[in-house]
Amino acid sequence: MTDLDHLIQLLAKLPGLGPRSARRAALFLLKRRESLMQPLAAAMAETAQRVRACSICGNLDTAEPCSLCRDATRDAGLICVVEDIADLWAIERTGAYAGRYHVLGGALSALEGLGPEELHIDALLRRCGEGSVREVILAMNATVEGQTTAHYITDRLAGTGVQVSRLAHGVPVGGELDYLDEGTLSAALAARQVLKRPAT
Amino acid sequence: MTDLDHLIQLLAKLPGLGPRSARRAALFLLKRRESLMQPLAAAMAETAQRVRACSICGNLDTAEPCSLCRDATRDAGLICVVEDIADLWAIERTGAYAGRYHVLGGALSALEGLGPEELHIDALLRRCGEGSVREVILAMNATVEGQTTAHYITDRLAGTGVQVSRLAHGVPVGGELDYLDEGTLSAALAARQVLKRPAT
Repeated sequence: MTDLDHLIQLLAKLPGLGPRSARRAALFLLKRRESLMQPLAAAMAETAQRVRACSICGNLDTAEPCSLCRDATRDAGLICVVEDIADLWAIERTGAYAGRYHVLGGALSALEGLGPEELHIDALLRRCGEGSVREVILAMNATVEGQTTAHYITDRLAGTGVQVSRLAHGVPVGGELDYLDEGTLSAALAARQVLKRPAT
Repeated sequence: MTDLDHLIQLLAKLPGLGPRSARRAALFLLKRRESLMQPLAAAMAETAQRVRACSICGNLDTAEPCSLCRDATRDAGLICVVEDIADLWAIERTGAYAGRYHVLGGALSALEGLGPEELHIDALLRRCGEGSVREVILAMNATVEGQTTAHYITDRLAGTGVQVSRLAHGVPVGGELDYLDEGTLSAALAARQVLKRPAT
């Protein structure tokens, strides 16, 4: 196997790239050796070596604790619990949240053999026990596993002084009712927001 | 910008990856640091440094001349002319060709400002003038640019002892007539192959 075949084989392992698009990507890189291929190789090697999971929240960062945990302008009394780092990134992109995070590393799943010990739940409870946390926002996926995990964490936090909340269900912004599933629509109806109360 | 953002930005430049899939790919890599991320970074750096365009045919390889040009079992009397290295790879995958190649590096295109000087056409003519070449197979794309290029090369090879051929047009193997464009179907009809001649 040539060096090129080896490179293509590795590229094909990336999500979203198959054998065909990996070949295309390899050729694309080879035609941009200095402007893209070498910088990408260096960034990859550097990141692979330097990025670590934050010992507090589980976020990936080159700093330890991570830049979000170190940011004194972020509210340390608020912890948003997510399944995966991709979810943390998604919430950060909204720019609408200025608290801390906690990455579980998955959701409870009997099928995948993921129990409470496999997830970073104990670390979350320890953080909540330190006294400075006022509220935990459960931002799990709206799947059976995500909701099971949310229930489990809610139970484990019962009796503590910490408030537990979850993300609202409802109509996606820009979404059309006609295309929405019944579950979401029912949830949106039940959680309807009052715009004007009757005059008294 | 963090190291991670920088990595994602570079990944997003690959064909087939957008910002979203680049984030997914970065996370995928970070979760497989030793099994994939470091080997990929090394393969990329290594290939970027060592792969060169073959001075004879223009193929990309770490060897010079490339392994195809050095392969004594391949027929040096046969040159398959392609626009791009991806086309060379496609023909190699068929396993049906055991001659040499010549990569033009594109097709004649007034729009893109590609004239005969920008393509490796002179090098092809030089190879054909060396006396050992019997046939040139033109394997350009079936586009206006590809066909213009084929015509141009055919003209330039007029008067030499070299036979010039092109790939057959016809029904793709496994293709359904109903879905085929008229041009391909007309070409397939005109180039129909006799299965049985009338008894005499």
